[in-house]
Amino acid sequence: MVRVLVLHGPNLNLLGTREPEIYGSTTLADIEAALRQLAAELGVEVESLQSNHEGVLIDAIHGARGRCDAIVINPGAFTHYSIALRDAIAAVDLPTVEVHLSNVHKREEFRHHSVISPVASGTILGFGVESYLLGLRAAVSLVRQSAKNKG
Amino acid sequence: MVRVLVLHGPNLNLLGTREPEIYGSTTLADIEAALRQLAAELGVEVESLQSNHEGVLIDAIHGARGRCDAIVINPGAFTHYSIALRDAIAAVDLPTVEVHLSNVHKREEFRHHSVISPVASGTILGFGVESYLLGLRAAVSLVRQSAKNKG
Amino acid sequence: MVRVLVLHGPNLNLLGTREPEIYGSTTLADIEAALRQLAAELGVEVESLQSNHEGVLIDAIHGARGRCDAIVINPGAFTHYSIALRDAIAAVDLPTVEVHLSNVHKREEFRHHSVISPVASGTILGFGVESYLLGLRAAVSLVRQSAKNKG
Amino acid sequence: MVRVLVLHGPNLNLLGTREPEIYGSTTLADIEAALRQLAAELGVEVESLQSNHEGVLIDAIHGARGRCDAIVINPGAFTHYSIALRDAIAAVDLPTVEVHLSNVHKREEFRHHSVISPVASGTILGFGVESYLLGLRAAVSLVRQSAKNKG
Amino acid sequence: MVRVLVLHGPNLNLLGTREPEIYGSTTLADIEAALRQLAAELGVEVESLQSNHEGVLIDAIHGARGRCDAIVINPGAFTHYSIALRDAIAAVDLPTVEVHLSNVHKREEFRHHSVISPVASGTILGFGVESYLLGLRAAVSLVRQSAKNKG
Amino acid sequence: MVRVLVLHGPNLNLLGTREPEIYGSTTLADIEAALRQLAAELGVEVESLQSNHEGVLIDAIHGARGRCDAIVINPGAFTHYSIALRDAIAAVDLPTVEVHLSNVHKREEFRHHSVISPVASGTILGFGVESYLLGLRAAVSLVRQSAKNKG
Amino acid sequence: MVRVLVLHGPNLNLLGTREPEIYGSTTLADIEAALRQLAAELGVEVESLQSNHEGVLIDAIHGARGRCDAIVINPGAFTHYSIALRDAIAAVDLPTVEVHLSNVHKREEFRHHSVISPVASGTILGFGVESYLLGLRAAVSLVRQSAKNKG
Amino acid sequence: MVRVLVLHGPNLNLLGTREPEIYGSTTLADIEAALRQLAAELGVEVESLQSNHEGVLIDAIHGARGRCDAIVINPGAFTHYSIALRDAIAAVDLPTVEVHLSNVHKREEFRHHSVISPVASGTILGFGVESYLLGLRAAVSLVRQSAKNKG
Amino acid sequence: MVRVLVLHGPNLNLLGTREPEIYGSTTLADIEAALRQLAAELGVEVESLQSNHEGVLIDAIHGARGRCDAIVINPGAFTHYSIALRDAIAAVDLPTVEVHLSNVHKREEFRHHSVISPVASGTILGFGVESYLLGLRAAVSLVRQSAKNKG
Amino acid sequence: MVRVLVLHGPNLNLLGTREPEIYGSTTLADIEAALRQLAAELGVEVESLQSNHEGVLIDAIHGARGRCDAIVINPGAFTHYSIALRDAIAAVDLPTVEVHLSNVHKREEFRHHSVISPVASGTILGFGVESYLLGLRAAVSLVRQSAKNKG
Amino acid sequence: MVRVLVLHGPNLNLLGTREPEIYGSTTLADIEAALRQLAAELGVEVESLQSNHEGVLIDAIHGARGRCDAIVINPGAFTHYSIALRDAIAAVDLPTVEVHLSNVHKREEFRHHSVISPVASGTILGFGVESYLLGLRAAVSLVRQSAKNKG
Amino acid sequence: MVRVLVLHGPNLNLLGTREPEIYGSTTLADIEAALRQLAAELGVEVESLQSNHEGVLIDAIHGARGRCDAIVINPGAFTHYSIALRDAIAAVDLPTVEVHLSNVHKREEFRHHSVISPVASGTILGFGVESYLLGLRAAVSLVRQSAKNKG
Repeated sequence: MVRVLVLHGPNLNLLGTREPEIYGSTTLADIEAALRQLAAELGVEVESLQSNHEGVLIDAIHGARGRCDAIVINPGAFTHYSIALRDAIAAVDLPTVEVHLSNVHKREEFRHHSVISPVASGTILGFGVESYLLGLRAAVSLVRQSAKNKG
Repeated sequence: MVRVLVLHGPNLNLLGTREPEIYGSTTLADIEAALRQLAAELGVEVESLQSNHEGVLIDAIHGARGRCDAIVINPGAFTHYSIALRDAIAAVDLPTVEVHLSNVHKREEFRHHSVISPVASGTILGFGVESYLLGLRAAVSLVRQSAKNKG
Repeated sequence: MVRVLVLHGPNLNLLGTREPEIYGSTTLADIEAALRQLAAELGVEVESLQSNHEGVLIDAIHGARGRCDAIVINPGAFTHYSIALRDAIAAVDLPTVEVHLSNVHKREEFRHHSVISPVASGTILGFGVESYLLGLRAAVSLVRQSAKNKG
Repeated sequence: MVRVLVLHGPNLNLLGTREPEIYGSTTLADIEAALRQLAAELGVEVESLQSNHEGVLIDAIHGARGRCDAIVINPGAFTHYSIALRDAIAAVDLPTVEVHLSNVHKREEFRHHSVISPVASGTILGFGVESYLLGLRAAVSLVRQSAKNKG
Repeated sequence: MVRVLVLHGPNLNLLGTREPEIYGSTTLADIEAALRQLAAELGVEVESLQSNHEGVLIDAIHGARGRCDAIVINPGAFTHYSIALRDAIAAVDLPTVEVHLSNVHKREEFRHHSVISPVASGTILGFGVESYLLGLRAAVSLVRQSAKNKG
Repeated sequence: MVRVLVLHGPNLNLLGTREPEIYGSTTLADIEAALRQLAAELGVEVESLQSNHEGVLIDAIHGARGRCDAIVINPGAFTHYSIALRDAIAAVDLPTVEVHLSNVHKREEFRHHSVISPVASGTILGFGVESYLLGLRAAVSLVRQSAKNKG
Repeated sequence: MVRVLVLHGPNLNLLGTREPEIYGSTTLADIEAALRQLAAELGVEVESLQSNHEGVLIDAIHGARGRCDAIVINPGAFTHYSIALRDAIAAVDLPTVEVHLSNVHKREEFRHHSVISPVASGTILGFGVESYLLGLRAAVSLVRQSAKNKG
Repeated sequence: MVRVLVLHGPNLNLLGTREPEIYGSTTLADIEAALRQLAAELGVEVESLQSNHEGVLIDAIHGARGRCDAIVINPGAFTHYSIALRDAIAAVDLPTVEVHLSNVHKREEFRHHSVISPVASGTILGFGVESYLLGLRAAVSLVRQSAKNKG
Repeated sequence: MVRVLVLHGPNLNLLGTREPEIYGSTTLADIEAALRQLAAELGVEVESLQSNHEGVLIDAIHGARGRCDAIVINPGAFTHYSIALRDAIAAVDLPTVEVHLSNVHKREEFRHHSVISPVASGTILGFGVESYLLGLRAAVSLVRQSAKNKG
Repeated sequence: MVRVLVLHGPNLNLLGTREPEIYGSTTLADIEAALRQLAAELGVEVESLQSNHEGVLIDAIHGARGRCDAIVINPGAFTHYSIALRDAIAAVDLPTVEVHLSNVHKREEFRHHSVISPVASGTILGFGVESYLLGLRAAVSLVRQSAKNKG
Repeated sequence: MVRVLVLHGPNLNLLGTREPEIYGSTTLADIEAALRQLAAELGVEVESLQSNHEGVLIDAIHGARGRCDAIVINPGAFTHYSIALRDAIAAVDLPTVEVHLSNVHKREEFRHHSVISPVASGTILGFGVESYLLGLRAAVSLVRQSAKNKG
Repeated sequence: MVRVLVLHGPNLNLLGTREPEIYGSTTLADIEAALRQLAAELGVEVESLQSNHEGVLIDAIHGARGRCDAIVINPGAFTHYSIALRDAIAAVDLPTVEVHLSNVHKREEFRHHSVISPVASGTILGFGVESYLLGLRAAVSLVRQSAKNKG
């Protein structure tokens, strides 16, 4: 069965309690529930991890090799500077979908919108919780497309 | 019934014949067919337009007011400089999903990755034809979410 | 009789309906009426054109040679990148007044505030509809000044 | 009666004697006379001040609060760096029209064309002496428009 | 018989009447005549089109596939920003020679001298009308060289 | 009783032993002692943490919600790039004072002096150990001011 | 007795009346009173000066040599460009504390946040009136620390 | 006996399995073996650590004080942004050799090639595994040179 | 008889042996032969020089005054930085055609594509050996045009 | 008799007492004496003024018209930003020599080395007091050369 | 027998006499001796050349083809701008090791640290004379590695 | 007797014949004569060299050690990029005066006005031939000042 690793970067554990006027009141638990429901619909498994530690996320990406088929990652603030995270994604070479709840193109004070995007298979941003659901669909589609090509 | 306008920017009429090693052999007609099939599944209507003329696309966006509920747009090369297109999207104030077949973050020679993104509801890029299908899902989700909020 | 061509760039046809909290509820028709009234006061004629097509505006500028005495242009979004429009203005060599409803210096995300300004005779910005009326006064003044110098 | 403060920045006292092939032979006295005549036509009063001292201009702007209804200012070279002047204009919160005799967009060696423009109500540039007259009209229009809105 | 499409970008219809002290008095008709004469010498055909509309030029480039063997293009002001034109040239994959009447390296105010050059086979600039003639020679040489390599 | 969390970023554990000619011989223990003494004077409590791990500091900031009233943080090298730390501070929304022993404006090789400053209530830098004491005073003042406003 | 010169830069005379929603309703007189009260507590004297004239502030700094022991300065808009003020501070070589009412890091449109900071002993910003009081404490601490070192 | 700490930054645990067409099939274990063999030849000891956690590497550098004589570090992706790592190296003040397997000057998309280099004794890059061996030789040479100078 | 000096910059002596997959197998001798043949056709003389020494090329340009009618130069790597070569070309004031075998706009890592272009009469690039032949034609055309104008 | 105005910018009144290890112990009075002695040798008159007020220096430059033959100015910190001073020099159109005691090219933190240089006749920097003496010689030479050309 | 060409760029003939507090008192002759001794140990030959002439170094690199197996080069100041030297290294396609005595990353005033590095096999910097010895080891290692791969 | 080496950079041999409307008709021989006359007045010797070869100038600077007391150099185009020349001047450590005939600050297209200035004792520019004479005076003054300090 297709298995997708969902990773949440720093501060996303506060979702629903942090600046709710921007991010809404949906919590990380709500997102997990919605993802599990969609996974059931699509006939896939998801496992997930949130961490405020760059190294923990990198270790998790390394650990996904041989055990997961794709990654969905919301890198949070690491989007803007964690080249180590970027290298980890490039190294394990799994289909990886970068998702963001809001439109990061508006945080224009940072020079690089995303150091992750160039190594991601694709990127989805701006749709709130729906970004994760579209991201899971995209990841599953990438895995099945790839299986079809190989088959 | 929810109606979504799908717009294809310049040179996308050549899709499937242009640099197939990069963009694959899927034609615009194939994409249209896939979109219509998904639209039927989702119970919505799509209408679409391709043009190499910036002004024609702007006129179409203006014309969508009061007649369509959302826009899905692949702005092609206009992504990088058409501030007029951007202003048109901002002006009509419809949910607008920006989609790209491939990962534009790799065309790094252009300073602004996208002048469209800041006014789009969200952006989806890098999944080939699947970008359009995810874009249609996202657009429909935005319309239904908004209807629910108003209702 | 002095004749002034008034040109409105892309999306200005939506004036009064687009982001009224920024641009107010004055429509393009209102502006046209105010311009005609002032033209009558000043004893000049105005003709005007709005287009979302860069090429249509360029053709109109070319067509003004030998038929009009001055141009008043609100280039809209073309302000920021249409070097072709700029070249057209430079080429026909008529007194040209660039006007803007609002203060473009606040749209600081664009590197060049205006590619048009260096070839315009002068620029007026920030006074709403009044910008057009001041622009017409300025254009007429330029024509009459020039006639006096030649005469 | 509406009263407008007209301010002239550094070196403008030399007008008419300085680089006449660029700026023409009109002196500051000529401009003052033309402004007084237009003021009479419009039924308003103008008072004016020229200074080469940034602090003197700031003091004058402060002094205009409660005594004048609008400001017309040609900041001269202070256009390019006097953030103190800019703050003074922002602080007194009177309608303020920035005018320039010539097209400052051609003095491209300076990075910021104008630090004043973002706090001015509007800007008029490139029409020589006529810039001042249009500026006075614009200032009066802003005052009367504002009175009408409040009334 | 070898057929070459010659494209003239915006404002080039004014050639010979626009700033003659810079561009000389040669008109577009003169250039066309000189090109036809050289084409006869070289035993090739030329067809040509001038347009102020970016979309019209793109459509023409698309239409050249299968009907023409090479393109000679003077992109005029589009040189500096039309990435859509650039993509069109890249997409049809015909030998394409970029020509300019004058030395664009002197219009230094624009950051990118040419967005077209990276996709052109080669570039010729600075020789006035002669640029077109050298461009036609270069295009024919590219076609014949390519035919020889394939033959 | 008012409780203030004092955080010390990476390498500050070496204080007093590292480059003493720049930073003096005061150790982190000395600073802690001075802070406790001032806390007693001001009638508040301080708790503190030093870590070389970005994630540990973020976790501590999250943990301060509901338990502490303000934060005093010397982000050390994280000042220059830890947007995750910045987001953590923004998310918990406690009065936060950024302190630095020395004048970071002299480490000019880094583009952004501080990514933390824009989300801090205020910043104090350049006074050595005194920076911490002023920072504690400032934090307590912010808490008491806020209590007074609410009360 | 320790004597501290407190300097207020341009437009600070308007404090309490200017943009009160940003700066509050505290006037410069209120700040002076608070400073005098704290000075009494600390057993020091303060004298103060506000000016909109760069030269007046420089003269005052020069005059402080031999008569004052430290300077507290809020340079206002001069923060961003007055290298002459900066040189004056560097030249007289007195302990100098730079204070700001609000967080200048948010006025990001200016390239240099502060040309003063590199020559100040330390900087305090973002605490409103409290910035001045912390600044006075810091200045006194610097003087007494220095006396102790020399003694 | 001279003791050298060898540190491997993030993702280097994947060496030999990650993008082998770029980095070859040598694993970290192979490198460790080669280093131990060369250490034996040179009569020195090496100890080593790989971590994906910035904080773990910083702690290890701190721990080397008084126990090791030199450091050889391949900072991996931290090369580009870990100013905390840089400060740690500067703080412990041991001879430190920065090594890279490949030529980082080709990863030109990052502004700073290395934030580590300015605090390293020297840098060796581009020789694959040989970079580590040259790095160990260089570190030993630095230690012995320094001992000779002191002796 | 018209005489044209052909100059080849550094490393062009290796042509045909250096990176043949990019530059082809044509040697400098082949180019010289092709140029002599075309010169005979056109009824002109060519003399040529290759040097890896900037000073030798400058001396040759100086020596061309009064003896040659035009210069064709492939500046090689000097294109990117030799302002001395540029000044030499500007100083002798002969028609000068800059040629390049390949499209230098793709060596985008260099900021200035060419410091030579602004002083060249025109530039031809991207046609391999044909660039030289077009360059010779262009040079002869410039000389004959100039003779006609003077005659 | 030739009369030269010598102007000293802000903080130069402190010369000899300010950072003597950089600027030496020569005072402004010493420089004045040396200038008067050289003036006597050269048979010219000098008058001089030091001010910390930009406006005072501008007024002095205006006042030199018709009364002095040349200006020698050390603009001090105004070198880096006073465009008003620059405009004053350009306006009065007298031979003007810019002098600096030390090598301003080393104060590299400021973007513009000098905004004055482009309008000065010439610049002399780096020779300490000798800079003034060379500057006076240069000014007198410019005046006499000009007189000879006119005579 | 393996033969390595060692090249020394401009001003390195002054080594040991130039700024000895930075570069030490080792002369170029000392380096040559140390290299010859290490060459003997490694069983290879070295030949070397120092020149202040860019062209002479390029000629030497060309001459190494077919006669030497590798190059060790200290490009001196040419590091920063000699693209011609860079092209020469790229053209002859021999293993090339770039060495520097000191840490060039500290000469931060130059934009490009090294234009040579991208075409060098590897770079060694910061170890004084030891840089050359490590460079020779690296060069020999590259040659033997390459021979083993081919064999 | 004091001996000064005068060096002229590339293209200065053409002086008087090159663009005389900018540089006048004075030849290098005229300058040499004027320098010899002033040298006689000052009781010093000058020797001089002009070369278009960077290496020749560097060799000459090296050769001046122990034989000359100071250098006057007009680096011509090398001003803008020859870091090798700069290093040569820094290495020989003789008083060195950089002179320019015209105001190089106007050749604004080059990023670095002068790479030579930071290592020159002082710079004189903009006075035509007089620049050399002032330069010789300055060099002699530096030598005599230095002798006095040592004596």
